[in-house]
Amino acid sequence: MPGTQVGAPPSPQLFFETVTAFQQTEALKAAIQLEVFTAIGEGKQNAEAIAQRCQASERGVRILCDALVIMGFLNSKAGSSYSLTQDSAIFLDRRSPAYLGGSIQFLLSPPSLEGFRELTAAVRKGGTVIAHNSTKPEHPMWVDFARGMAPLMKTPADLIAKLLKADEGQKWKVLGLAVGHGLFEITLARHNPNAEAWAVDWANVLEVAREPVDVR
Amino acid sequence: MPGTQVGAPPSPQLFFETVTAFQQTEALKAAIQLEVFTAIGEGKQNAEAIAQRCQASERGVRILCDALVIMGFLNSKAGSSYSLTQDSAIFLDRRSPAYLGGSIQFLLSPPSLEGFRELTAAVRKGGTVIAHNSTKPEHPMWVDFARGMAPLMKTPADLIAKLLKADEGQKWKVLGLAVGHGLFEITLARHNPNAEAWAVDWANVLEVAREPVDVR
Repeated sequence: MPGTQVGAPPSPQLFFETVTAFQQTEALKAAIQLEVFTAIGEGKQNAEAIAQRCQASERGVRILCDALVIMGFLNSKAGSSYSLTQDSAIFLDRRSPAYLGGSIQFLLSPPSLEGFRELTAAVRKGGTVIAHNSTKPEHPMWVDFARGMAPLMKTPADLIAKLLKADEGQKWKVLGLAVGHGLFEITLARHNPNAEAWAVDWANVLEVAREPVDVR
Repeated sequence: MPGTQVGAPPSPQLFFETVTAFQQTEALKAAIQLEVFTAIGEGKQNAEAIAQRCQASERGVRILCDALVIMGFLNSKAGSSYSLTQDSAIFLDRRSPAYLGGSIQFLLSPPSLEGFRELTAAVRKGGTVIAHNSTKPEHPMWVDFARGMAPLMKTPADLIAKLLKADEGQKWKVLGLAVGHGLFEITLARHNPNAEAWAVDWANVLEVAREPVDVR
């Protein structure tokens, strides 16, 4: 097709990368569920040691870790010794205060996935085709959201408390609408003992906001 | 965590890109199923015209096309007039001889997906946990493969026929093992009327190889 070769030669690369992109999501999910990043952070370096720590097969771990190297989540030395990248150490090792792995409970929960599985029908209709969708009152999806997404907001909540000078202890009334995990309100109240906070959300979600933050 | 900030500042970008990568697969699949690329190739430029051609909603098409622009499959002008990239015109417009869209019939078929949905369990075990997996005789997955992947092999098959100088018409015996769509053998036989070709595969797959190439 010389007529269309105006710039770079034609390439199906973007097509194949996108068609197989879901495989990368699944590989990351498996690594988080098996705690592969935490195992490597603890000092397990090769597939055998990681497999033992993660109660998985050495073959499976080796293949998964090699994929994670290609995807940019791990480094490897001599093809068999794995180490965490800086970002994986910060965001994917369970022991890190900035651990994000728990967010897959929400981001990859069945309700978060099912709409995408029906995307063709949704585009035809111009809106969701899922009957019991996430805008229905007390949809359990938002309980997963409250549980899974709170750790992501820990740093922003601390920054907001600092920005608002919560530690000065002025008399405050804080109103939180659709609070979810309630972390913003809880953090403000922790920094400011003179703050009174109201939290509004569906009843099932407020159950999560009521749980002690440190044991969630 | 200043101790780990050795280079670039920490970023959760790769994590979020990978966790949401499956959404890109679904967006591309929806666009192929709705024939969005073909509609734009035919000259439909805005969401309204594309939606009418694809029997979809204007809202859904607009949102999908905007996503495809970000993903690199479409260009947009003034935010509302869409056009095909060079690669989309070659590989995703149904009217192109190099059309690859049909391959999602195999690449995103339920048997191709189900193993990835059980990846954590597969890594634990060190092998597939799908009982009726693709190595079982006459697995229907390979019928989808034969139907969906043939167009990808059209150009390579022509190049092989050229490389082997099939047109010189020497007396040939061609043996194809696990032929699938049979396109390599059929192409050689078309170029060389003195070639006799044998095709070996499971019975259900050979049904596809027997179908006339031009009506598949």
